[in-house]
Amino acid sequence: MKINRICFTLLILITMNVNGEAQKLFTLEELNFGGKNAYNYVPQRWKYYWWGNKLVDGNQEDNLFLNPATGKALKDKCIIRDQLLSAYGLSADENVHFDGFPYSNQSLLLNTVKGERSLVDFNEWKVIWRQSAEGSLEWNKVSRADAFLRDYNLWIRYADGHEVQLSKDGSREIVYGQSVHRDEFGIHKGTFWSKDGQKLAFYRMDQSMVADYPQVNTFSREASLEPDKYPMAGMTSHKVTIGIFDLQREETTWLNLGDVTNRYFTNLAWSPDGNILYLFELNRDQNHCTLDAYDVITGNKLKTLYTEDSQKYVEPLHPITFLPWDNEKFIYWSWKDGYTHLYLMNVNGKELGQLTKGNWVVKELIGFCPSTKSIIITSKEAGDLQKNIYSINLKTLKRTLLDNGKGVHQARLSEDGLYVLDTWQEPDVPRKCAVTSTKTGKSVLLQTAPDPWDGWYQPIFENGIVKAADGITDLFWRMVKPADFDPSKKYPTVIYVYGGPHAHNVEASWHWGSRSWETYMAQKGYILFILDNRGSEDRGRDFEQVTFRHLGQEEMKDQICGVNYLKTLPYVDTDRLGVHGWSYGGFMTTSLMTNYPDVFKVGVAGGPVIDWKYYEVMYGERYMDTPESNPEGYKQTSLLNKAKDLKGKLQIIIGMNDPTVVPQHALQFLNACIEAGTQPDFYVYPGEGHNMSGHKSVHLHERITQYFEDYLK
Amino acid sequence: MKINRICFTLLILITMNVNGEAQKLFTLEELNFGGKNAYNYVPQRWKYYWWGNKLVDGNQEDNLFLNPATGKALKDKCIIRDQLLSAYGLSADENVHFDGFPYSNQSLLLNTVKGERSLVDFNEWKVIWRQSAEGSLEWNKVSRADAFLRDYNLWIRYADGHEVQLSKDGSREIVYGQSVHRDEFGIHKGTFWSKDGQKLAFYRMDQSMVADYPQVNTFSREASLEPDKYPMAGMTSHKVTIGIFDLQREETTWLNLGDVTNRYFTNLAWSPDGNILYLFELNRDQNHCTLDAYDVITGNKLKTLYTEDSQKYVEPLHPITFLPWDNEKFIYWSWKDGYTHLYLMNVNGKELGQLTKGNWVVKELIGFCPSTKSIIITSKEAGDLQKNIYSINLKTLKRTLLDNGKGVHQARLSEDGLYVLDTWQEPDVPRKCAVTSTKTGKSVLLQTAPDPWDGWYQPIFENGIVKAADGITDLFWRMVKPADFDPSKKYPTVIYVYGGPHAHNVEASWHWGSRSWETYMAQKGYILFILDNRGSEDRGRDFEQVTFRHLGQEEMKDQICGVNYLKTLPYVDTDRLGVHGWSYGGFMTTSLMTNYPDVFKVGVAGGPVIDWKYYEVMYGERYMDTPESNPEGYKQTSLLNKAKDLKGKLQIIIGMNDPTVVPQHALQFLNACIEAGTQPDFYVYPGEGHNMSGHKSVHLHERITQYFEDYLK
Repeated sequence: MKINRICFTLLILITMNVNGEAQKLFTLEELNFGGKNAYNYVPQRWKYYWWGNKLVDGNQEDNLFLNPATGKALKDKCIIRDQLLSAYGLSADENVHFDGFPYSNQSLLLNTVKGERSLVDFNEWKVIWRQSAEGSLEWNKVSRADAFLRDYNLWIRYADGHEVQLSKDGSREIVYGQSVHRDEFGIHKGTFWSKDGQKLAFYRMDQSMVADYPQVNTFSREASLEPDKYPMAGMTSHKVTIGIFDLQREETTWLNLGDVTNRYFTNLAWSPDGNILYLFELNRDQNHCTLDAYDVITGNKLKTLYTEDSQKYVEPLHPITFLPWDNEKFIYWSWKDGYTHLYLMNVNGKELGQLTKGNWVVKELIGFCPSTKSIIITSKEAGDLQKNIYSINLKTLKRTLLDNGKGVHQARLSEDGLYVLDTWQEPDVPRKCAVTSTKTGKSVLLQTAPDPWDGWYQPIFENGIVKAADGITDLFWRMVKPADFDPSKKYPTVIYVYGGPHAHNVEASWHWGSRSWETYMAQKGYILFILDNRGSEDRGRDFEQVTFRHLGQEEMKDQICGVNYLKTLPYVDTDRLGVHGWSYGGFMTTSLMTNYPDVFKVGVAGGPVIDWKYYEVMYGERYMDTPESNPEGYKQTSLLNKAKDLKGKLQIIIGMNDPTVVPQHALQFLNACIEAGTQPDFYVYPGEGHNMSGHKSVHLHERITQYFEDYLK
Repeated sequence: MKINRICFTLLILITMNVNGEAQKLFTLEELNFGGKNAYNYVPQRWKYYWWGNKLVDGNQEDNLFLNPATGKALKDKCIIRDQLLSAYGLSADENVHFDGFPYSNQSLLLNTVKGERSLVDFNEWKVIWRQSAEGSLEWNKVSRADAFLRDYNLWIRYADGHEVQLSKDGSREIVYGQSVHRDEFGIHKGTFWSKDGQKLAFYRMDQSMVADYPQVNTFSREASLEPDKYPMAGMTSHKVTIGIFDLQREETTWLNLGDVTNRYFTNLAWSPDGNILYLFELNRDQNHCTLDAYDVITGNKLKTLYTEDSQKYVEPLHPITFLPWDNEKFIYWSWKDGYTHLYLMNVNGKELGQLTKGNWVVKELIGFCPSTKSIIITSKEAGDLQKNIYSINLKTLKRTLLDNGKGVHQARLSEDGLYVLDTWQEPDVPRKCAVTSTKTGKSVLLQTAPDPWDGWYQPIFENGIVKAADGITDLFWRMVKPADFDPSKKYPTVIYVYGGPHAHNVEASWHWGSRSWETYMAQKGYILFILDNRGSEDRGRDFEQVTFRHLGQEEMKDQICGVNYLKTLPYVDTDRLGVHGWSYGGFMTTSLMTNYPDVFKVGVAGGPVIDWKYYEVMYGERYMDTPESNPEGYKQTSLLNKAKDLKGKLQIIIGMNDPTVVPQHALQFLNACIEAGTQPDFYVYPGEGHNMSGHKSVHLHERITQYFEDYLK
């Protein structure tokens, strides 16, 4: 019998000899799956903040101010823990949650203590202002007003503590102030403060007409219903409207949107003066979008500034951003030239030119440097697997690289935009941190993280390129080999796959972005192979849109290009190929197992989409249109029709309460397999959603590993 | 990789050589799991009916009348198919569903044709009466009135076709005319006609106060809720009342029952004159019951005739039965002397004596022979594994065996009780059928079924006895060995178990009652072992009640006695012991896997009870009392507390919509295992209930088999 419980406490003592050197072996718990010692095996992180243009070093008990030009400490200390505690009358074992320096010109700390938001003067060490944070959605630092939810309804808590109720009919069906359209189109919240904090724009979503997906709570005394409004592709969707509450008048104006059926409103942005609200609108078919300006006093539409159409789909993901030095001009994002780039426009809708250009994408608009009239971005210009920091002179459009030109960088800008805090990884750099002048490019290294795996098991991480199935496009892969790799041996090999849009797996970060489970599998003697197929992110519009109306099909062809490359490697045992993925990767895994039954012997598919007709409207119809308008595409991609072709061992694993890829997918697949006489395996995590974390993730990965151990080894 | 699809079409051609003789191997489909050829492998059955005292042989196209004394055909034919079809104006490819001979003194056949109930005179071949059978619950042959349901409400359809509505408030919550108390206490229907068909007693169940178990239909476009009222042990239960509708007056009288909270009403029986309704009432604790008489005109209780109490539980399962020749006397059933026996009482509640006595149980009251003043029963007197037919002279109480004294017999009596149709099996007799005089015992053999497995794989079926864990009680077992059994080899051995009350697995029927999967496993080289532990049926009150308040505990001890016996057999490989069971047997399997983790290597538990607090009130509280009154018992038996002790491979399989052992059991067990870091396997049959049938049963048994093949072999 196979042992089906791993003794974590024993395994930690086990070592392996590699090149005469003892390497300690990782347990799953240690490998970043949320176990209590996981942090030991993750590269060090640091706490730095900007207070206006001063850099604050929060890595000591008492925080220091640094000169960003030199990285040297200034005289005065910022947060002195003892004084902070005493300002709140707290004892040493109590905690203050630090939320930042809201005002560059005032010595105030924003903190949360015992559910209360407060400001502390860090010169006088006095709490100068307090406010309840109960139900808080979004706080505005200028007016110090807080938008909050109480019993489904939206309220404003003013700085002086008085509260005003904005809505009355909030319910499970009428949702206020929260993210809408299932977090698609770049939406992640439902309240939008004007710059001065005197007006709040907010979403209202009526989902009373949307079907309930009946999720079941099996942890109550008797199982109970916890329904979830879930509009499936082609079905009736919710209706969203937008209100603007004026804090002075204490009144709400609704945008005059007319019939909002099958219309999406996203990327809300305020004009600097707070009189106009800009937003993007998409049609349900998602092949047409407009940038519109609305008068927030009358609620009337003023103008359509911009229109974008596509034979496939448009996807505006970013609100417009005004130039800090010119209230008449703003930046908008588009991939209309094939790659995501920045464009300048004025408030009359006049195009003022493309700010960035090239066969690479802009990733982030970090901010502005008004004194040099430049913008700071991150982009993939320096390499498809990289993300680097650039300044762009808006007059000349000249781009200047602000980092070392390698790896994956994160940027945080000082208020004046003259300095950027740069934190990055490279394939052999666990993590570093520097502060760099955006004007001169001069950089001061602040921190270098030691290798947290020193003395521990170190697989071999490699990367490379194969051609996609189109014969033209380069695709990037990562391979993880056992530390004691012997090219004369043959290794069972597992392909880890995601494959869907808006994500990538291979990048020039530490270990080429390797997930820690890959190391665990390498320890057990497997080779891991990870390839970003066409359809994944950051490679431009056409690279992504090749999957339109037949999700999974081109992606599979590319993954098979990866397999064909593996077949050229004498040390890959292609009779023992496995595949594993979650979510879209679960869809890919199940697709590969049933479309290429003679290629893959074992698969583990987590939270898989089985038929796109069970997936939600916003994401699903963008890529697949509706079941009615694209019956061939739905039929071709549905794994219900492929259940009969399953030959290998396939384990489907889901969170039993998954609100994203609902259990109907997996259950209908099982039924199709039962009808067809095929035998997938199945497991569920009761009460869990789309992903597991902590101990449950450890259990899950033990389960996944064991399945390959049972059937692939 | 293990092959996980069995090729049925190929397997049928495979044979095995046993003692130089080729035996064809069974496929799962053939082995009685509902496949289209399954009937070929089941012993032949025959159609015989009684028309009053005439035996009708329905095994020809045109049915014959037989003389029951000789078994010889009489001159006249009964059903002539051509004439029957022409009476209905049907063509030869259409069908008439024959429902019997309702009147012994009239030449009428009761049939259902295209949803209509009708009577055909089989002398004149004319349809003499028709009536819709839509929604029919129960038809009375005397008044020819039909009780039926329409939109949750109870109606009467009179013989002349006119319809009267009895209830108005029927709904999913207010249930009329259907089985109540979850089919416990011998209840299997909700309507009860008086003998003359002029009065209908019926149940009304108010379950509005009962919790909904949220079952989910995943076959609709989007999954939808199909809640099921399911009262769990210790929780609020439904309320049942009883109405009597008078067909003449067209009025309903309700029994004056007072507050019916936590009261069970069962075993409804009419007095011969239709003026009194008798029923048993139990308290919620089920340790006290009464036999009560109610006046059906006033609804008032007339009298309590009989009371039975128990330190553990009472369980009245049978309505009283009046003697056909004495309207003042009736028979009632009780196990008060330790074994289920028959007693006589008069309508004043006077005990008139025990009719049967001994350390064995009565199984069925078949009927009466008025001319000899005797009753015909079946009982286990001739052997604990048998069921035989006896007549009992009510004057002398002398019992006369009416069959061959072997095997398991089924009896159907002629109207005058002078002849009994006896159909039976013995361990080496597939099936036989005879007609026997209840007066003289003289018997005429009508049919002998050939061995349907002739030329096919024939395992070795054995049976025997071990002592129970109490050291005293004999327990019976069956063993199934491969046809080519070699005592010098060591065989992986699987224990099949049910173990719960109201059932047994080992009996003196064909192959000792072996289930066909046992043969399939024997074909694959396993030994199967099946033991009826204490707690199972037909061995008397104390044998069953030893499990009271700690279900599974004594049963496990007895199963381990079986294991200890297996350990004495050199050919049983006790390092490769498996266990499999369904429902209570799933509970037993999971209990054994976790309580005896070093005994069993592999288990498959179907539809298992995991914690009795999730089981329903009626059955659950009978054996376990409530979670509040028996916390130790619930704790001891809960497998949630044992999840941590799982060592072997255990696969849990459920019907995802199981309304009996709801999915909460299995899902909570999985969660407990996840918390504890143990790794059971799991599978579900979407849309299925507590048991699979047809193709899904084949798929299920393929799955069960494969699990033992993967991990036990």
